[in-house]
Amino acid sequence: MNNSPLSPIGRVVRQALEEDLGPGDATTHAIVALDAMGKAILIARDELTLAGMALFKRTFFEVDSTLTFVEHYKESEVVPKGSTVCQINGRLSSILSGERTALNFLQRMSGIATLTRQYVETVKGTRAKILDTRKTAPGLRWCDKYAVRTGGGYNHRFGLFDGILIKDNHIAAAGSISKAVLLARKGAPHTLRVEVEVEDLAGVKEACRAGADIILLDNMTPATMKEAVSLINGAALVEASGGITLATVKEIASTGVDMISVGALTHSPDAADFSLEISGVG
Amino acid sequence: MNNSPLSPIGRVVRQALEEDLGPGDATTHAIVALDAMGKAILIARDELTLAGMALFKRTFFEVDSTLTFVEHYKESEVVPKGSTVCQINGRLSSILSGERTALNFLQRMSGIATLTRQYVETVKGTRAKILDTRKTAPGLRWCDKYAVRTGGGYNHRFGLFDGILIKDNHIAAAGSISKAVLLARKGAPHTLRVEVEVEDLAGVKEACRAGADIILLDNMTPATMKEAVSLINGAALVEASGGITLATVKEIASTGVDMISVGALTHSPDAADFSLEISGVG
Amino acid sequence: MNNSPLSPIGRVVRQALEEDLGPGDATTHAIVALDAMGKAILIARDELTLAGMALFKRTFFEVDSTLTFVEHYKESEVVPKGSTVCQINGRLSSILSGERTALNFLQRMSGIATLTRQYVETVKGTRAKILDTRKTAPGLRWCDKYAVRTGGGYNHRFGLFDGILIKDNHIAAAGSISKAVLLARKGAPHTLRVEVEVEDLAGVKEACRAGADIILLDNMTPATMKEAVSLINGAALVEASGGITLATVKEIASTGVDMISVGALTHSPDAADFSLEISGVG
Amino acid sequence: MNNSPLSPIGRVVRQALEEDLGPGDATTHAIVALDAMGKAILIARDELTLAGMALFKRTFFEVDSTLTFVEHYKESEVVPKGSTVCQINGRLSSILSGERTALNFLQRMSGIATLTRQYVETVKGTRAKILDTRKTAPGLRWCDKYAVRTGGGYNHRFGLFDGILIKDNHIAAAGSISKAVLLARKGAPHTLRVEVEVEDLAGVKEACRAGADIILLDNMTPATMKEAVSLINGAALVEASGGITLATVKEIASTGVDMISVGALTHSPDAADFSLEISGVG
Amino acid sequence: MNNSPLSPIGRVVRQALEEDLGPGDATTHAIVALDAMGKAILIARDELTLAGMALFKRTFFEVDSTLTFVEHYKESEVVPKGSTVCQINGRLSSILSGERTALNFLQRMSGIATLTRQYVETVKGTRAKILDTRKTAPGLRWCDKYAVRTGGGYNHRFGLFDGILIKDNHIAAAGSISKAVLLARKGAPHTLRVEVEVEDLAGVKEACRAGADIILLDNMTPATMKEAVSLINGAALVEASGGITLATVKEIASTGVDMISVGALTHSPDAADFSLEISGVG
Amino acid sequence: MNNSPLSPIGRVVRQALEEDLGPGDATTHAIVALDAMGKAILIARDELTLAGMALFKRTFFEVDSTLTFVEHYKESEVVPKGSTVCQINGRLSSILSGERTALNFLQRMSGIATLTRQYVETVKGTRAKILDTRKTAPGLRWCDKYAVRTGGGYNHRFGLFDGILIKDNHIAAAGSISKAVLLARKGAPHTLRVEVEVEDLAGVKEACRAGADIILLDNMTPATMKEAVSLINGAALVEASGGITLATVKEIASTGVDMISVGALTHSPDAADFSLEISGVG
Repeated sequence: MNNSPLSPIGRVVRQALEEDLGPGDATTHAIVALDAMGKAILIARDELTLAGMALFKRTFFEVDSTLTFVEHYKESEVVPKGSTVCQINGRLSSILSGERTALNFLQRMSGIATLTRQYVETVKGTRAKILDTRKTAPGLRWCDKYAVRTGGGYNHRFGLFDGILIKDNHIAAAGSISKAVLLARKGAPHTLRVEVEVEDLAGVKEACRAGADIILLDNMTPATMKEAVSLINGAALVEASGGITLATVKEIASTGVDMISVGALTHSPDAADFSLEISGVG
Repeated sequence: MNNSPLSPIGRVVRQALEEDLGPGDATTHAIVALDAMGKAILIARDELTLAGMALFKRTFFEVDSTLTFVEHYKESEVVPKGSTVCQINGRLSSILSGERTALNFLQRMSGIATLTRQYVETVKGTRAKILDTRKTAPGLRWCDKYAVRTGGGYNHRFGLFDGILIKDNHIAAAGSISKAVLLARKGAPHTLRVEVEVEDLAGVKEACRAGADIILLDNMTPATMKEAVSLINGAALVEASGGITLATVKEIASTGVDMISVGALTHSPDAADFSLEISGVG
Repeated sequence: MNNSPLSPIGRVVRQALEEDLGPGDATTHAIVALDAMGKAILIARDELTLAGMALFKRTFFEVDSTLTFVEHYKESEVVPKGSTVCQINGRLSSILSGERTALNFLQRMSGIATLTRQYVETVKGTRAKILDTRKTAPGLRWCDKYAVRTGGGYNHRFGLFDGILIKDNHIAAAGSISKAVLLARKGAPHTLRVEVEVEDLAGVKEACRAGADIILLDNMTPATMKEAVSLINGAALVEASGGITLATVKEIASTGVDMISVGALTHSPDAADFSLEISGVG
Repeated sequence: MNNSPLSPIGRVVRQALEEDLGPGDATTHAIVALDAMGKAILIARDELTLAGMALFKRTFFEVDSTLTFVEHYKESEVVPKGSTVCQINGRLSSILSGERTALNFLQRMSGIATLTRQYVETVKGTRAKILDTRKTAPGLRWCDKYAVRTGGGYNHRFGLFDGILIKDNHIAAAGSISKAVLLARKGAPHTLRVEVEVEDLAGVKEACRAGADIILLDNMTPATMKEAVSLINGAALVEASGGITLATVKEIASTGVDMISVGALTHSPDAADFSLEISGVG
Repeated sequence: MNNSPLSPIGRVVRQALEEDLGPGDATTHAIVALDAMGKAILIARDELTLAGMALFKRTFFEVDSTLTFVEHYKESEVVPKGSTVCQINGRLSSILSGERTALNFLQRMSGIATLTRQYVETVKGTRAKILDTRKTAPGLRWCDKYAVRTGGGYNHRFGLFDGILIKDNHIAAAGSISKAVLLARKGAPHTLRVEVEVEDLAGVKEACRAGADIILLDNMTPATMKEAVSLINGAALVEASGGITLATVKEIASTGVDMISVGALTHSPDAADFSLEISGVG
Repeated sequence: MNNSPLSPIGRVVRQALEEDLGPGDATTHAIVALDAMGKAILIARDELTLAGMALFKRTFFEVDSTLTFVEHYKESEVVPKGSTVCQINGRLSSILSGERTALNFLQRMSGIATLTRQYVETVKGTRAKILDTRKTAPGLRWCDKYAVRTGGGYNHRFGLFDGILIKDNHIAAAGSISKAVLLARKGAPHTLRVEVEVEDLAGVKEACRAGADIILLDNMTPATMKEAVSLINGAALVEASGGITLATVKEIASTGVDMISVGALTHSPDAADFSLEISGVG
């Protein structure tokens, strides 16, 4: 899920550059001499958690492998507003041609990491981990999930293939929670845990009896969640989900759930605010 | 820029499905019989401007070409909260396996369209068009820019190749606004207009004298913009940009600029809120 | 793991055809008229379990989408020696050009299914399921694992991403079985079960204490396995592996293990023996 | 056929790694520290002919380009049972993540080379060369044919495009052996020899008269083959084929044929038996 | 070489469209209504041999699969100057967006076919076939060689893999013509004929003695060629090459050579002159 | 349009090599020892303008990254007949296997550059720039347009996306020149200039009134062009096109037009004449 040496970095960077550069950077080509050298500094215009520097740098390297970087902050560090994150040295035209694409990666990924950290900080002191969901930007799941980890969160399953999550529709198709769990036990790979989503305490009880490994409490009130946690009593991992916000996450974490999954981390993050300033054209 | 028969829909849909499905949907495979039929309805859980139905449907078709759709709203229509957007009929397992990926497209694109429409409505009555920027999600530029048009906005250049935009760094490299415009006139394709970004009225005047086709007023106060518009007096198109929000866009539009570009349309849209409800498993 | 609508069938078929056809079938082009029609029958020259008909047919369809098939046996059926499996009708040159590639898929996949069925039949009456491993032909994992299921076997994890299997080297790196299981619990996705490979009864006990979900008995004698099963006593699933053959599998299955994984199913299957006979050139 | 600088090594290695690693190696990621170094030794657990080291190493390099290798045996050498083939040094997690995929290449290719060598040794002293066929694993033709050469065999045509082989069905379509040879002479590229498959001595005579460059004796008894060789008397190259095994190949070689093609080399090789043992985790 | 069902038509058409259309046809999108229908006629503005209609039509179908065609001339026919080749009906915007790319295929391929036919007509009455070479436009070998056949010519080898052609440099590397032929006989696939290029009569004699299957007379005078043909006397096929033009090809053909290869067919063809005229916008 | 770091060089080189090398260079493999070293010199057999050295070298590097080059002429220089352009050193077999593909790039691109230079020289002393068109070889637009620049010409739009060119069919669809220009102003991206093609002086006047940025005079006589230039009087850029040849281009340039576009530069260039001579096999 995590340290794939085959991460799609190469592919996403190339595709992003292709859509921006197409047959060439008309402005820079006409105005900036090929041998003009320059340096640029990357400024954080707000406090943020840094995520995506590997993609930022890879973008520039794809444009021009002779560019060099001096980095002042490391991945996952909190960068204070106004700080210089890194400096780029080399051919000015290459810096200008790669700028927008590189920033597009960094602002999205740091935006996700920054938002994740806010959730993580908010639930500090509870046992709850903050999880992402599969509500990611199409084609960017690896990047989005990586950014969540960088912000201190944890990943839920990567896709439909590396986790079993029985939802209401599966339950309806099977006939009952018990039948659905049974079918999953029988038909799904034995290497995967069986997680089942329930909506009320009756569901919690049935899931426990059916031997679910993980129980997802969907859209319950904190009070009900607390009762559910106590009913489950360690027999399964407990996850909470459903429209959870920064305003509500602490109370939910306090119910004793093991994990809280938050779709907004990846479906509605605000871009982190960076600017790239060219200093010293020479 | 617009009606490409080669739009990347096929590619982005397949890549998104691949990252979600990988070697298979373990849960659905174990629980839902291959011959179980069902129907699902897509609900808008908030008022929104619909965008991305082609990708939503294409996703399901890639999973199972026998699914059918009944659509109640059309692309670019405003959908009231709680409305049924469309109904999907067919193999239940196919609906379940395609659901998340299809929604991921729709919620991002409708989010962008909905936000764009808010800007467009806000400037109604002025001459200003709302434009997007190149601050898009990597790999999704076509989708993001299409969503902006669907919301009533206009597209700025697609990439670095189909428009000339001389920014401060290009000006620094050239030595002056005049020299930069001259170089662009001489060295860039004659089919592209020359746009130059200026930061004050002195810049406006120099850009006019240099014969810029479009002048971008960057981060000016509304008062200065007004003066700039009056100085330019129709000799060039005028674009405003720089941290413009829903709160400030009306005043800026009232200065008489032709276009206002808003990065937030595509770098920080909130996902539109949809749910897919399976009704009738049979 | 199983019913992916994105199975790589299209890709593997096209790649296989490309390597065989390259710029064209020189022999058939020179000798067989483009409008000559024919029919061919596929004969099983030995008893076999049929697997791979979808790839067999897809190969011919890629060559010529107008070919038609009459099938006499279905996927996973046992076909008696000498039987006609199916008939192909259409352009003779297309049948000849697709023949070898189509058979290459069918003979490998049916070979795997046939071998798998022998193991499955041998352990009938015990609780043991026959599992495959990741010892597949490079690029053909989906096909190989599909063939195992077709022969009545079950799939172990598809790859390194959808199952946790702690082997001796992981244990060495962690320091002990207990530490390795603990690290996996903490650092791996909560959706995956924790399986640990052990080599003796001490290992079995430590794995149980550490709370492993699945225990893999590697290269133990049947007697030791029996003891292990009794020690574990249902607290974890039990898998046996290590050089198991048709001669030894029954005794191992009788020890009470839940699953037996057999590398030879996919790393050394004999090709099933088919011939394609053209009858009626006309 | 042979020394292509465009051999598909890169592609097959990447595809094989992608199917095994997907979004990441969950076990190793959780348990093995990124900075833990180790070494592994590759052991031959049976006598074998080594083939595929380039793919074995390329697999590890794709995972981690900083791994290093010390090789004790070279491609095509016979490795005694129990020998250390090579040692790998570097990041332990990289060795573990690449292990299975790298071994999958090596065990198949060395299995083919080992089997080929057995045939080659068996016919030593005769004029017969051992040839492969197009009965290869789909997508792995280059690898399979390379392994045959490594074991001392020779390659028949790579695909349908670089050799003419007139089989019974082509003859039926043309009307007679003579007509088929004539059509091939006329319509096929002049750079290709014309080979024709015959089933009896009448066919041999007709093929000779028609001027075939190569005559393939299909499924004949050794006695008939001997007669055929004497009839042909050097006017064409002679190839034998048809269910030839290690038990029968010597007698067939003794008939004086130039070449013997053996499908089993690539359609049913047993995997060579290797193990990778991590020694020294440090 | 010829009838590959895997011809690269799909790939070359898509790549050509992608480079022309990129993110869209800006002019047509702005001006032509999506529902405007039209028809276009394709005019031959000079006499030409028609080649490439399959790619011409495929281009339009990729843009819009609802376009229809009425064809008045067939592939390989001679089209008189001023004739209407075909008519296209359908969405006007689709016709306009596909026009240039479709014509680019047709004008190159018909140019090659027309030039080939001139050579073929010129040598009529001799035994000589006109052959192409590998001097094709990069990426378009299949198209270029197909066009040669369409014009009545024959194909030499497709690439380096399906024919042996020993040139001066190979001879220098081997030491002599005899040694080079011997090495080729021994080391190259037995399915390929051995062709050797010679520059004088001594070379012809040595090639004959060495048993070459085909002898290529490079840059000889017609008189020397005649002598070579007489020396060879049917023991090998004879090919002539080297700067042959329409002015010289007849005399060379009269020497009795079997084949004449002409690089100019594919390296310097003039585009055939077509125009696409929209009639009836409605 | 120009300095894209994402130029398709890698892709076109690989595709060209793949079609030539396929599974391998049969001749060289059989005859030339892998460790034989050699050198080759590239000779210009006619005076030419050098273009495409980057692709020439990249082709050889893809075959063998250890080859080295000594270059005697630089891109865009005029190379006298008989000159040595560069020398290649390294493995002889690699030089031989890459030779044809490398030359195919160089001869086409230098042919285009040489032809372009002839046009450029012919119009020297006038204000007219020589432009290319979109009449390029499919898949090679980047290469063809680069070669035009190398010969001293300028590029017109790269594709349909980075320039607006209103042709007769667009005018017919819109109803009039004025309406078409208006629609383009309104509906096309504001970053693109509006160019309109006219056929007579009435068209010129209407285009001026409509405010076209560029006026394309199609197939006018020089006298009419002169009048058009005088009518336009600097209010728009003026381009001439339509069957212009080396014989007519000077007179057209003398009419005062700003640009002359010539389709023949890329649709019918003669290949420049190079030979690669191996010297010193050792």
